[in-house]
Amino acid sequence: MFEQNRETLDQALSAISERGYWSAYPESPSPRVYGEGAAERGKEAFESYLGRPFPTDQPSTGDPVGAERSPYGIELGVTYPRPDVAALIAAAKAALPAWRDAGPEARALTCVEIVNRVNKRSFEIANAVQHTSGQAFVMAFQAGGPHAQDRALEAIAYGYAAMTASGTAARWEKPAKGDPLVMEKKFTVVPRGIGLVIGCNTFPTWNSYPGLFASLVTGNPVIVKPHPRAILPLAISVQIAREVLAEAGFDPNLAQLAVEEGVGLATELAVHPDVRIVDFTGSTTYGDWLEANARQALVHTEKAGLNTVVLDSTDAYKGMLGNLAFSLSLYSGQMCTAPQNILIPAGGIDTDEGHKSFDEVAAGIAAAVGKLLGDDARAVELTGALANPDVLARVDGAPALGEVVLESRAIKHPAFPEATVRTPVIVRVDPARSDVYTSEHFGPISFVIPVESTEAALNLLGETVSAHGALTAAVYSTSPDVLDRAEKAALEAGVNLSCNLTGGIFVNQSAAFSDFHGSGANPAATASLTDPGYVAGRFHIVQSRRPA
Amino acid sequence: MFEQNRETLDQALSAISERGYWSAYPESPSPRVYGEGAAERGKEAFESYLGRPFPTDQPSTGDPVGAERSPYGIELGVTYPRPDVAALIAAAKAALPAWRDAGPEARALTCVEIVNRVNKRSFEIANAVQHTSGQAFVMAFQAGGPHAQDRALEAIAYGYAAMTASGTAARWEKPAKGDPLVMEKKFTVVPRGIGLVIGCNTFPTWNSYPGLFASLVTGNPVIVKPHPRAILPLAISVQIAREVLAEAGFDPNLAQLAVEEGVGLATELAVHPDVRIVDFTGSTTYGDWLEANARQALVHTEKAGLNTVVLDSTDAYKGMLGNLAFSLSLYSGQMCTAPQNILIPAGGIDTDEGHKSFDEVAAGIAAAVGKLLGDDARAVELTGALANPDVLARVDGAPALGEVVLESRAIKHPAFPEATVRTPVIVRVDPARSDVYTSEHFGPISFVIPVESTEAALNLLGETVSAHGALTAAVYSTSPDVLDRAEKAALEAGVNLSCNLTGGIFVNQSAAFSDFHGSGANPAATASLTDPGYVAGRFHIVQSRRPA
Repeated sequence: MFEQNRETLDQALSAISERGYWSAYPESPSPRVYGEGAAERGKEAFESYLGRPFPTDQPSTGDPVGAERSPYGIELGVTYPRPDVAALIAAAKAALPAWRDAGPEARALTCVEIVNRVNKRSFEIANAVQHTSGQAFVMAFQAGGPHAQDRALEAIAYGYAAMTASGTAARWEKPAKGDPLVMEKKFTVVPRGIGLVIGCNTFPTWNSYPGLFASLVTGNPVIVKPHPRAILPLAISVQIAREVLAEAGFDPNLAQLAVEEGVGLATELAVHPDVRIVDFTGSTTYGDWLEANARQALVHTEKAGLNTVVLDSTDAYKGMLGNLAFSLSLYSGQMCTAPQNILIPAGGIDTDEGHKSFDEVAAGIAAAVGKLLGDDARAVELTGALANPDVLARVDGAPALGEVVLESRAIKHPAFPEATVRTPVIVRVDPARSDVYTSEHFGPISFVIPVESTEAALNLLGETVSAHGALTAAVYSTSPDVLDRAEKAALEAGVNLSCNLTGGIFVNQSAAFSDFHGSGANPAATASLTDPGYVAGRFHIVQSRRPA
Repeated sequence: MFEQNRETLDQALSAISERGYWSAYPESPSPRVYGEGAAERGKEAFESYLGRPFPTDQPSTGDPVGAERSPYGIELGVTYPRPDVAALIAAAKAALPAWRDAGPEARALTCVEIVNRVNKRSFEIANAVQHTSGQAFVMAFQAGGPHAQDRALEAIAYGYAAMTASGTAARWEKPAKGDPLVMEKKFTVVPRGIGLVIGCNTFPTWNSYPGLFASLVTGNPVIVKPHPRAILPLAISVQIAREVLAEAGFDPNLAQLAVEEGVGLATELAVHPDVRIVDFTGSTTYGDWLEANARQALVHTEKAGLNTVVLDSTDAYKGMLGNLAFSLSLYSGQMCTAPQNILIPAGGIDTDEGHKSFDEVAAGIAAAVGKLLGDDARAVELTGALANPDVLARVDGAPALGEVVLESRAIKHPAFPEATVRTPVIVRVDPARSDVYTSEHFGPISFVIPVESTEAALNLLGETVSAHGALTAAVYSTSPDVLDRAEKAALEAGVNLSCNLTGGIFVNQSAAFSDFHGSGANPAATASLTDPGYVAGRFHIVQSRRPA
């Protein structure tokens, strides 16, 4: 079954070992890649869900639930069956043994098939991601589609590699006086138990697929609890998983959806004694709560952080400003990887356009953002819409945090008049105001902070990231020595560093199979997406031996 | 440095992948293997420690501490420097960066060198193990020496394999319109932080080396906190590690000893914010406490369990009885892997000597133990001495738990008149008395339990092990179907199973590089010694990227 996926799996296994460039799923939404009419059919499929109950056959009370609101203002009106927790758990437990007994290879090939089928539905899912996260369409397609699928495949590959690192059987022959002692041994991968994936509002698929597939491939049934504002992309994904599982002769309840409108369901599931793995993306407060309270489970969290940029010097001033402006603007800074704290020596920096004062650099970034987002119709394709009212409230409150360098601007979306669109606000914050910049201000809010020197900037990066976490850091310098020191500071703080990005690569983007997302080495996350530490613990090995 | 150890490392890497028979350190204490006079020199070295302060140069208050008592009754009188916790932590932190920066290969080769040097001191350590754990000399040599060293090497190999599973650098070249996007990336292993190893009384080296070396090889400085009754073996081991580290140009404080006479030090260290990894072997109560309270750390525990044997039928009745008798007698049942609950159908079992009633089988096991330990002088070489008064109290209390099938016998040790030696007690316990057999009764105490049928036995194994844990299970049956069902029950309960052991392999022995010790899949342990799940989480990968 799904033997045709072996080549994909093998390529993925090579890719995670080499970590150069590789991608299984094309990121271009072009009809030349995905076929004529694919975009239109995907949009129609998305629209067919609106205003009615989502079609699913999984265990439930039958009662409709769901209150998603599109950040673009269109009516969604999709409802989902209210989960019966006891029934979900019972169904997951019943599904486990046959999935476990199928072994790593059958599971991996089946999981790849699920991702392949998800890939074929990329346009449909992209529309669902756009209208739940507020991402612009192309980003919703890429990040919510092929990039998320690549991360899923990466998790499958890591899981498979970990499970198959040692043999499934061995003949043990110990020299002894007289005849050797000989034993036949079998080693079987056993799953930890039921996995729970708690999705987030902004990247419902990208941040959920790694946990979903890492748990599934290692033999664990998974319950997916989407964010109440971003259910549909995961509902479609889970439904595809159920179809493939059933087709392969497995119990579709290996993948189940658990939807709620409000709060409480994640907690109920996370502390259930039969839930043994929790993958969560979201707030530090709730992530910390899970780590402290879901004691029966292996808990992986990705939480808030202080993504930091250090400016020391550059030989490509315009490229630097443009690159930073893009990173601040993309999806209105609603990426867990978007920069927040931009540390600039108070005395300014040397550039290929001469020495620039702190104020000139700050104004330069502001101007670059202004230029990038100058045309409203094009701007919205970069910024998307604000995902929820909390982000808007933070944007509105940002000017009170310091001295405004760039005001946020409300943009009327040409296609969606009800969409809430805001351009980035940049605020100058004094280094003494650590109360401001040691919290994450999620959204299009960033701080330019005048520090004493590059050394002080690197020290501040180290201190703040070690204490509060970060998913990304960046440095700009023409000095090899400064770059070395920045690498050392990032290493000590346990944060992934990007150096001198001035072109088409951005600090907030990480490429599956090459870039690690997060590290686990600072408080922002417990493990990388995706590395051996992310998959280990989701399964164990149990042996049986007998004399030969 | 230590380039000569590469072959050992490579062989260990093959061994963990294949898991057939392999051993780096010969288990025979013969002069033909370890050299003429090695045993005598080891004994002298051991005796040179007695009655004086242990020679060490590590940070301390200078104050002497230590109250080890030999279970064989001889005076030890070794004292150790009282640790200054703040100084230990500070020294460990200071030692970290250079060890991290040395990289996986240098660390692995250095760690192998430490184990090689430990191996050369096997006789000295064997004497120390004997007179702290109470093990008989040959066992102290084998389990405390080469077998422990093999487990250490296994942990080094797993750590090295995990750290080097993906490249340390990559060139990422993404096709793009016009020129490709090209990035150079570096991936660096960073340690989690300070490791704490909390040793146990009975296997001071065997149970401590895996955590010590898994943490050390992955870049973490380690503080070793021995059991107050079993300090010397670890003091010698840590001292050897310090010597090798210093010789290799590293800070010897990468390995430090933290000794106490009473209780409290483990807790003080375990919850210290800078201690990020804890490896513990010991009671369920304290293991559970660590898991709940050492929240800043990755905690690996090996705790109590209900090692269970199911008797269904056999075609080698004498072999079965003799094998079980050996497992019950070896080190007076003071192995975490020794059987406790022996489940026998009340209607008896079929054997090659005809059908045997429950009572006959129980009496048969008792007689086999009696025969095995019939000669006092030979018996003590198998049983060793009781490690501590708690074990003695449990032996004395065992008859009250049911109907005595075999009484424990006090033996006078011919060489050590003060040694506390007791043969196993076997008690018949009714299946209704789950209050008795669902607790671990550590020591030479086992229960024969008449169950309704083999099916009932396998169900009871599943239920009790799932709920309370076990490190080993065994089954005897001539029926392939029963063996299959036993394997299934063991898999569901997550316990390693031995089938039909009737010769020179015993359920309580696990061979490094082939047998997993524990599984992590039941409450007795969080991970196997040693598997990928045991080493993952001890390090992270941090990346740096820049345009090429």
